[in-house]
Amino acid sequence: MDNVQMIGTKITAIKEYLYNFARTHSPTRLMSSENTYSLSKEHCNLKYSDILPHNAEGYPATREFLMKVVDILLDFIKSTNDRNAKVLDFHHPSDMMRLLDLEIPDSGLTLQQLLIDCSTTLKYQVKTGHPHFFNQLSCGLDLVSMAGEWLTATANTNMFTYEIAPVFILMEHVVLQKMRELIGWSGGDSILAPGGSISNLYAFLAARHKMFPMYKERGLSAVGGQLVMFTSDQCHYSVKSCAAVCGLGTDNCVMVPSDDRGRMIPSKLEDLILERKAKGHIPFFVNATAGTTVIGAFDPIPEIADICQRHKLWLHIDAAWGGGLLLSRKYRHPRMTGIERADSVTWNPHKLMGALLQCSTIHFKEDGLLISCNQMSAEYLFMTDKLYDVKYDTGDKVIQCGRHNDIFKLWLQWRAKGTEGFGKHMDRLMELSEYMVRRIKQMPDKYYLILEPEMVNVCFWYLPTRVRNMPHTQERIKILADICPILKGRMMQAGTLMVGYQPDDRRPNFFRNIISSAAVTEADVDFLLAEMDRLGHDL
Amino acid sequence: MDNVQMIGTKITAIKEYLYNFARTHSPTRLMSSENTYSLSKEHCNLKYSDILPHNAEGYPATREFLMKVVDILLDFIKSTNDRNAKVLDFHHPSDMMRLLDLEIPDSGLTLQQLLIDCSTTLKYQVKTGHPHFFNQLSCGLDLVSMAGEWLTATANTNMFTYEIAPVFILMEHVVLQKMRELIGWSGGDSILAPGGSISNLYAFLAARHKMFPMYKERGLSAVGGQLVMFTSDQCHYSVKSCAAVCGLGTDNCVMVPSDDRGRMIPSKLEDLILERKAKGHIPFFVNATAGTTVIGAFDPIPEIADICQRHKLWLHIDAAWGGGLLLSRKYRHPRMTGIERADSVTWNPHKLMGALLQCSTIHFKEDGLLISCNQMSAEYLFMTDKLYDVKYDTGDKVIQCGRHNDIFKLWLQWRAKGTEGFGKHMDRLMELSEYMVRRIKQMPDKYYLILEPEMVNVCFWYLPTRVRNMPHTQERIKILADICPILKGRMMQAGTLMVGYQPDDRRPNFFRNIISSAAVTEADVDFLLAEMDRLGHDL
Repeated sequence: MDNVQMIGTKITAIKEYLYNFARTHSPTRLMSSENTYSLSKEHCNLKYSDILPHNAEGYPATREFLMKVVDILLDFIKSTNDRNAKVLDFHHPSDMMRLLDLEIPDSGLTLQQLLIDCSTTLKYQVKTGHPHFFNQLSCGLDLVSMAGEWLTATANTNMFTYEIAPVFILMEHVVLQKMRELIGWSGGDSILAPGGSISNLYAFLAARHKMFPMYKERGLSAVGGQLVMFTSDQCHYSVKSCAAVCGLGTDNCVMVPSDDRGRMIPSKLEDLILERKAKGHIPFFVNATAGTTVIGAFDPIPEIADICQRHKLWLHIDAAWGGGLLLSRKYRHPRMTGIERADSVTWNPHKLMGALLQCSTIHFKEDGLLISCNQMSAEYLFMTDKLYDVKYDTGDKVIQCGRHNDIFKLWLQWRAKGTEGFGKHMDRLMELSEYMVRRIKQMPDKYYLILEPEMVNVCFWYLPTRVRNMPHTQERIKILADICPILKGRMMQAGTLMVGYQPDDRRPNFFRNIISSAAVTEADVDFLLAEMDRLGHDL
Repeated sequence: MDNVQMIGTKITAIKEYLYNFARTHSPTRLMSSENTYSLSKEHCNLKYSDILPHNAEGYPATREFLMKVVDILLDFIKSTNDRNAKVLDFHHPSDMMRLLDLEIPDSGLTLQQLLIDCSTTLKYQVKTGHPHFFNQLSCGLDLVSMAGEWLTATANTNMFTYEIAPVFILMEHVVLQKMRELIGWSGGDSILAPGGSISNLYAFLAARHKMFPMYKERGLSAVGGQLVMFTSDQCHYSVKSCAAVCGLGTDNCVMVPSDDRGRMIPSKLEDLILERKAKGHIPFFVNATAGTTVIGAFDPIPEIADICQRHKLWLHIDAAWGGGLLLSRKYRHPRMTGIERADSVTWNPHKLMGALLQCSTIHFKEDGLLISCNQMSAEYLFMTDKLYDVKYDTGDKVIQCGRHNDIFKLWLQWRAKGTEGFGKHMDRLMELSEYMVRRIKQMPDKYYLILEPEMVNVCFWYLPTRVRNMPHTQERIKILADICPILKGRMMQAGTLMVGYQPDDRRPNFFRNIISSAAVTEADVDFLLAEMDRLGHDL
């Protein structure tokens, strides 16, 4: 090491030391700029033990504390909806660890410190509800749904019995029945699950149980052959995960090729079924996707349903993403034509419909399967000698025991919008995506549309100045792919915009924009396209 | 049908008609007594489309709406903590359906109506945080944790990547590491799961993967034998459910007998392992329970760990319920002595520790297993060319894709209490349970203690007047069991108290009281015992 290097290293060490000293010794270290949410003098030294439920006299302090929390949340909501505010304030994990005081102390902190904790947490959190956050299938912050979730927290109950969640259990009945009607079924059964992956798992389990009822007790070895499932090569990875979890092995989750629009090719599906049958395997389950994760493709349901009928296979439709479009008269067909022919459907209101995370549903055409498949008859919870009609207890239908209340936020949101309002909301998101496609086509020097979207997934490359006169060959595509992570990095550093990128099996990295937030307008789409150009033109 | 019957039937029909007419035609039908949360004149006719994020100018109305929701929640909190208020206002499902307007309308309702909806929902919800709610393993409403959950809702993010949940991901690191330290491990890995059942499933999957890494791709048929798991006959039913879900079949989840205190008998475990080995089966997994659901028993870990070591079996400890006692110097030993010898541990902070539902954790002694077991390498989400160190992305470790943020409420609560405060809280719950046992023993004419509890589960029979002079024979036990549902029904009808009952494999129905709420005091225990007597003495 030469002298200059040595001095550099020493300076860094000194800086680090001073930084840490200041952080750990300054009496004001936690009283930084965030500290605008002060409790009154009377309450500022109180701790958790001074408020309800620990101190029965603590209501005034409890109220003041909670109202200050609400102030913090309202300010976050305001800034989430402020187009001049940043989407995020990015820091690398190691820096973030230094900026935050995440330590778990031996002795409890004051309520005042907890308010600072809340405020600091939100300062560094990504604003997923910001109109310039286009990064995920779940974007946006629906404030009615949020109000519902606040109430859910306060009601703090478990969804396994009518006994302790009477109103919420009945809400599940009403909302899930409505959803089944929208699928096109007059009967059936449904449940809310913690995310689309677990919903898909429920479908898999019910299908296996329906075909091999003795399997539940005796296991896969009783089936007498290798079970096989089929899905497109564009499906969500949770489908493959079912095969690993449930004992088939991922080799027995057959990936069916898709066309250049990302839709499963039905003839290939049938070929693969026959191929596996010829090997003596037992095909039992086909997953069709309504709205694939990356490009938003819709597998052709009628053709796939015909094949399932011919070969007596269970048809599951993973509409976790596309399901919301069932609410739209304009966009439902042809995308989901034939969905009523499915045996089961996954549909996540926390995606396109904007319900707060988590809110995922799984629906079955046949009633009674969910309980006969999953029932373990825990005597301590699901007794039949209860005061009320125990058919309302849901706990024995699920592979969870405790289950979070995911219904109230959706029910309240649906009351607010009405079924028509939800339909209009879906139409609006689709129209905004169509607007984005038009704008991209108007700027062929700056943007390259990868394919005409069927949904709100708009897939494209950004073209920096230096490639604008190049022919669109593999060489140019490589450059465009290479700049994706760099441009995404610049967005995050600038904090002005978030759009996702990824490779798929046909092409290297490309951007995928999602419009699933009610906050987005045409002007935000224009901003997005201008901002990417501002940040990326010199790449 | 005679005339009197006919007239009766007609009167009922007329009443029903009038009731329904009034319900559907009265302009004030929804402006009932609950309507004390009125929006200002200016805002009372607004709808969801007039507030953020739909209307960018809507902040004042948004704020007023949310503040009214908070008023409703604060009133609920106040009444939850009011010992003179009822725990519940019970109605049978069919009556509840009539009392509530759960309908999903075609056109959206006003914000004012949504406030009425919120208030009505809470009016009929069971107050699980009420000091006289002793019904479930999760009782209580910790208001710091609740404030955390409000913030979680407002931040509305997904826990799969650091990219969109930077602060929360780091909080998971800090809190889960702390929990592993409390178990007694210096390294390892952990994840939060949607409930203890899914946590147990993770343990099962990791164990199978560790023993048979090729199984993930090739499936159970590649194992070349029947896998077998072992658990006590007192275990949580989710353990058995793993066997059904994952392809073993419940016949291959061997139930090991327990002693009269509900603890697994280690010698029986070893006998059963040998028996299955003799059949050519492959034992691989033993579940020991630390805190059984009904009687709160602790399986003897050191002896079970020795057996697992001898036979090279994975040792999982389901401490979903008992885990909280790891925080108590006084009660940790001997109950959980040896827990550090486990390969995996389930521990639900939403139970004894009072974090809001859902908050469940699963811990592994070996780092790296969770990812190699569950990884599906979804290219669109877990790219390695990101701006930041992607080791912080958790999504590829889990069988879910989207994952609710369950950490903030726990982190904030732990900051508030400190580790010492949490320990004291555990001690307090145990001391209150000991108090209850003492009181029961002081009233041998009214209460019969079934066994000395190891935890906060106090199991007993209530003795109505007519049996007080009977010898405690099977005949008397039958009477005591028969009155459990009736007395529970009276509690619910009166709305003053909730205590659970259930049968187990040794005895018919008995009461199981749980003290896991910070709201409970000695006076509440006295109330509970007096109230059961008031409601049940004549049975």
